[in-house]
Amino acid sequence: MSYKVGIVGATGAVGQELLSLLESRAFPVSELKLFASARSAGKRIEALGRAVEVEEATDSCFGGLDFVIFAASGSLAKELCPAAAAAGAVAIDNSSAFRMDPEVPLVIPEINPEAAREHKGIIANPNCTTAIALMATYPLHQQFGLKRLITSTYQAVSGSGVAAMAELETQMGQLSRGEETTVDAYPYQIALNALPHVDAFLETGYTKEEMKIVNESRKIMGIPDLIASCTCVRIPVMRSHSVSINAEFERPVSVEAARAAIEAAPGIDLVDDPEALRYPMPLEFAQKENCGAGRFRKDLAFENGLAYWVAGDQLWKGAALNTVQIAECLAES
Amino acid sequence: MSYKVGIVGATGAVGQELLSLLESRAFPVSELKLFASARSAGKRIEALGRAVEVEEATDSCFGGLDFVIFAASGSLAKELCPAAAAAGAVAIDNSSAFRMDPEVPLVIPEINPEAAREHKGIIANPNCTTAIALMATYPLHQQFGLKRLITSTYQAVSGSGVAAMAELETQMGQLSRGEETTVDAYPYQIALNALPHVDAFLETGYTKEEMKIVNESRKIMGIPDLIASCTCVRIPVMRSHSVSINAEFERPVSVEAARAAIEAAPGIDLVDDPEALRYPMPLEFAQKENCGAGRFRKDLAFENGLAYWVAGDQLWKGAALNTVQIAECLAES
Repeated sequence: MSYKVGIVGATGAVGQELLSLLESRAFPVSELKLFASARSAGKRIEALGRAVEVEEATDSCFGGLDFVIFAASGSLAKELCPAAAAAGAVAIDNSSAFRMDPEVPLVIPEINPEAAREHKGIIANPNCTTAIALMATYPLHQQFGLKRLITSTYQAVSGSGVAAMAELETQMGQLSRGEETTVDAYPYQIALNALPHVDAFLETGYTKEEMKIVNESRKIMGIPDLIASCTCVRIPVMRSHSVSINAEFERPVSVEAARAAIEAAPGIDLVDDPEALRYPMPLEFAQKENCGAGRFRKDLAFENGLAYWVAGDQLWKGAALNTVQIAECLAES
Repeated sequence: MSYKVGIVGATGAVGQELLSLLESRAFPVSELKLFASARSAGKRIEALGRAVEVEEATDSCFGGLDFVIFAASGSLAKELCPAAAAAGAVAIDNSSAFRMDPEVPLVIPEINPEAAREHKGIIANPNCTTAIALMATYPLHQQFGLKRLITSTYQAVSGSGVAAMAELETQMGQLSRGEETTVDAYPYQIALNALPHVDAFLETGYTKEEMKIVNESRKIMGIPDLIASCTCVRIPVMRSHSVSINAEFERPVSVEAARAAIEAAPGIDLVDDPEALRYPMPLEFAQKENCGAGRFRKDLAFENGLAYWVAGDQLWKGAALNTVQIAECLAES
């Protein structure tokens, strides 16, 4: 069996990773259509061994496709995912547009693959930091019963797209030559800096990104009353997010059992040997399909608590890879 | 009144900042002696408008001095602070050697200046991250009664000394020219990376740095039963530490009262206007005497909780400035 696949936002950072992952994972693609904004239409892209001309994404362009993967803005997804579903395709959306819609499954295939199979035409791909944090947290939840989740993030610039990645590189060059930095992708210089600001601010003082992690964690793990709080911070790292996690559980925990749960879980590597100075680092988990978890220790702030650290590729498990895995999940079933 | 001042470790990163702060704050120095290891002895340093020859630090070099400030290793401090005290000077030590000694006050002048005046010849300067985190946390403790403190740090390379600062600069240049990076100051590349590893690992899985923050917070704020947990992370920032804080209090909290407490507190600026995209950033607080606090919001994980973010210069409030302020404290009294 092979599938007719469309990609909306094919020219962006996530779109490019989608094409390379469809190829490296040998997803059976019989036909490939690439869509983007009018500005990029007409461009030719080499992908999956063929040259494909990019078409403008419109609500009438999805006929005959099996899967349409959206790596575009929330507003474009909001407009076009229903059209893709109406045309008979399964729309898999990377944006936040449908994630909290009770009619739309929000899926990490290692955690809730069964939800994907209950779709009504649209499946949402989680926020990048949520996906990476839960890869390490869900196996612990299964073991000990998660009650409270406190996270501080260390997020890569790839989450802001290719222009932000280029800007960090430019700023590093400028700084090393003693020049003024060019600041455009963020309100402030990101090289040699940390911005406690990812996505827009809400009236509560939280950012949208912080609330995505809180709300999506509840939905994906199926813990509607999970107590959770998050602080999101952008740091000068290229493409892997890291998360510092303090988690409180219902049942007594042990570091040994936590490590064993991670070792037994799919999609996550245990990198936890302090004596050998081994712990997960964002640089090490760039362009890796698996995330990494380490620094496991009893959390001194909770009776049944664990503190730990996770790193994972924002463009892969945080976006493109998880999307392809959702398609694989449906293709298998 | 003016004072005879000695500095041990005068040629290091903190030593250099000490000299510039003694000058900029017009600390009354009648005589200045600079000490370092045998390797740096004989070197001449221009400081406070005079040229001073660096002498080798030995246990018999402190005679006649009023203050001896140690910006050296813990082992050297352990050996020489008692000698300085025995010679009649007040030894103010930047290392961790004496911080938890019940006979030695551990002082942040904005928080517990009275402790400084009860010294028996040695006063300890706190860990850099502790000092910066508590500048924002103590005013909230006074207001609401601190019960539980959870911190994740974003630490600058200056904490590892001048060689680490130079290495980050070198690595940025190498990366921007597409060259291999030189890795020496840390076990791994620090540019474009994050290392969840500051100071040595203990058997519990925590690092020494993490336990310093837990234990020193209790001692400085006088809350021996404070529940606390910490994760320390090195990021590619030059000289300011930042800390993401989740704090639970005994009494009901409000964001307005928290902001007012920070505004009324000495040594800390409130930088908290999400609408105007204003929050504290490490780059902004480099070479500032005050620390900055912002991102104040109700902590969703606790009934009486606040989440917030602090940034401050590691070499200044985290080290040299606080030390000079301790000397000022004693000079005034």
